[in-house]
Amino acid sequence: MQAEKKQRTKLTELGEFGLIDHLTGDFEIKNKSTIKGVGDDTAVISYGDKLTLVSKDLLVEGVHFDLTYTPLKHLGYKAAVSNISDIVAMNGTAKQLIVGIAVSNRFSVEALEELYSGIIQACNVYHVDLAGGDTTSSVSGLFISITVVGEVDKDKVVYRNTAKLNDLLCVTGDLGAAYMGLLLLEREKHVFKADPSLQPDLEGHDYILGRQLKPDPRTDVIKMFNEMKIKPTAMIDISDGLGSEVLHICHDSALGCRIYQEKIPLDPTTVNMAAEFNMSVYTVALNGGEDYELLFTIGQEDHEKVSQMPGVSIIGHMTDKCEGVQMVTPDDEMVEIKAQGWDALRKREP
Amino acid sequence: MQAEKKQRTKLTELGEFGLIDHLTGDFEIKNKSTIKGVGDDTAVISYGDKLTLVSKDLLVEGVHFDLTYTPLKHLGYKAAVSNISDIVAMNGTAKQLIVGIAVSNRFSVEALEELYSGIIQACNVYHVDLAGGDTTSSVSGLFISITVVGEVDKDKVVYRNTAKLNDLLCVTGDLGAAYMGLLLLEREKHVFKADPSLQPDLEGHDYILGRQLKPDPRTDVIKMFNEMKIKPTAMIDISDGLGSEVLHICHDSALGCRIYQEKIPLDPTTVNMAAEFNMSVYTVALNGGEDYELLFTIGQEDHEKVSQMPGVSIIGHMTDKCEGVQMVTPDDEMVEIKAQGWDALRKREP
Repeated sequence: MQAEKKQRTKLTELGEFGLIDHLTGDFEIKNKSTIKGVGDDTAVISYGDKLTLVSKDLLVEGVHFDLTYTPLKHLGYKAAVSNISDIVAMNGTAKQLIVGIAVSNRFSVEALEELYSGIIQACNVYHVDLAGGDTTSSVSGLFISITVVGEVDKDKVVYRNTAKLNDLLCVTGDLGAAYMGLLLLEREKHVFKADPSLQPDLEGHDYILGRQLKPDPRTDVIKMFNEMKIKPTAMIDISDGLGSEVLHICHDSALGCRIYQEKIPLDPTTVNMAAEFNMSVYTVALNGGEDYELLFTIGQEDHEKVSQMPGVSIIGHMTDKCEGVQMVTPDDEMVEIKAQGWDALRKREP
Repeated sequence: MQAEKKQRTKLTELGEFGLIDHLTGDFEIKNKSTIKGVGDDTAVISYGDKLTLVSKDLLVEGVHFDLTYTPLKHLGYKAAVSNISDIVAMNGTAKQLIVGIAVSNRFSVEALEELYSGIIQACNVYHVDLAGGDTTSSVSGLFISITVVGEVDKDKVVYRNTAKLNDLLCVTGDLGAAYMGLLLLEREKHVFKADPSLQPDLEGHDYILGRQLKPDPRTDVIKMFNEMKIKPTAMIDISDGLGSEVLHICHDSALGCRIYQEKIPLDPTTVNMAAEFNMSVYTVALNGGEDYELLFTIGQEDHEKVSQMPGVSIIGHMTDKCEGVQMVTPDDEMVEIKAQGWDALRKREP
């Protein structure tokens, strides 16, 4: 049987406008707040008496992702949902997405289509309109810049600097799996580099790979808050790791906190994989990042309500600032949670 | 006299959060629609019954700018104003700016400060709030991603696809100067490369250099429209050159147009410099780009009003689609205006 030759259209074969039409042409508008999407100087968005939320991200090849093991479609999906997650972290709903991509000529039209198909899939899943797209060239590598616009009722917006003393500290889902998925992918890449005849051994690791390659922002939790009439006192999404996000809430709210190590939610497959890598699974949960779970604080009076929320763990409480940001181990030792420095400025590989 | 040693702080010396605070810390909020600027998951913006406009741009070193002759402060200023200009092109007012920067380690904190000082200067001049900043690393080079949010009254928004048959085609200011400024800078760079003892010869070229390095979006024209109760039927800002923008309006409005070559506004210094480069100044005006002037159409009934607007030239009129997009030369010859292909995918230097 002859292998089917994959189509490869050079980017320069389509004009700039042809390409944008081609990539975004059959995308339907879903939100009535989207007055004008792709195709003018700006997107036009109309909100009534809600607050408008705007967030953006810049993703860089070789820093935030590695195309050797990240399929372009997953990359597009993830770029979109990591931004949607920022809107979720304000207790809001994402409505529009604007995409900017810089690519070198080594990418084909089909490669960009793959990337866009992931973005569009995320938009479909999360009911978000693609309200603008811009593609330009880069000297080398792929850069993705995404802006997301959302809305939230004025009385429902949740900031990160409004936690109160004695509030309960809660986290959704489980932590560290996305990072273990990344380490697994990197290990298999190195094995493959050393001996290309070896096939990557990814079997049985669906959960951690899924968490790394196709994370899901917790829009369901926002819906639950609404239904159960719970309003967190502070909230942030876990993109850089629990440790970093806890420090944000504490620093910005001028408080300390105490986290109980054994309360940190972990999936068994994350625990197993951390053991395989000879790593402390708690280090992974604290510093791993990319979980896109929510870390939030809630008044003591909401303790019962929050206990009833499926998949939410109460992991500690807020303390006075002078008590610091501490984790209590099962042996009752106190470990200070520290900033990890500027990880974003260190490349994944030297 | 001893040369003062310029301070150079490595990016890694400040933490990520330290850096953002450092760069954006003393920036004051100017617009009451800015509820929350830098410092949470998203910017929070509130609009009443106006339309919200959102635009973004991704600027890539080696493609959109060359740091050999673009001072970082000017680059920041230009990155900001090119986005503000997109809001102006909708007949709107820019209100918030969100900045994303990816840099390699060859940049120092002082370099980023320079870049930000230009962005902040543009924000001050155009009364725009810096509502978010994110800095990350790149493997090589500098990438700037800017999102701007603005507002416009519902009955005042102007799209590019709403020009009508027989409407007058108008342009503000003069065209081609920014491109001649670029060519001059590139020429002097090459002279300097060939013989570093030669000083760049930029004297007497303030106007075209200013147009290239410190362009100004036409917020004054929007104000005039408002005062004179003029509403263009269609509008676009001239970022890619008159030819490309005229094609956008014609294509999107399903019309043709006729432009009179001798009506295209040119500054004498642009004409002189084009002659020095042995180029047709009309080619420069049509394809040069980066003028950030406005191209708009207006109903015949507004002819008198628009004639009274200082610095506005009526350069032609809209025709039926089947008549094509034409330029009439002084000899009454018709020249079809064609798409320039995807310039953004060609690097400035091979």
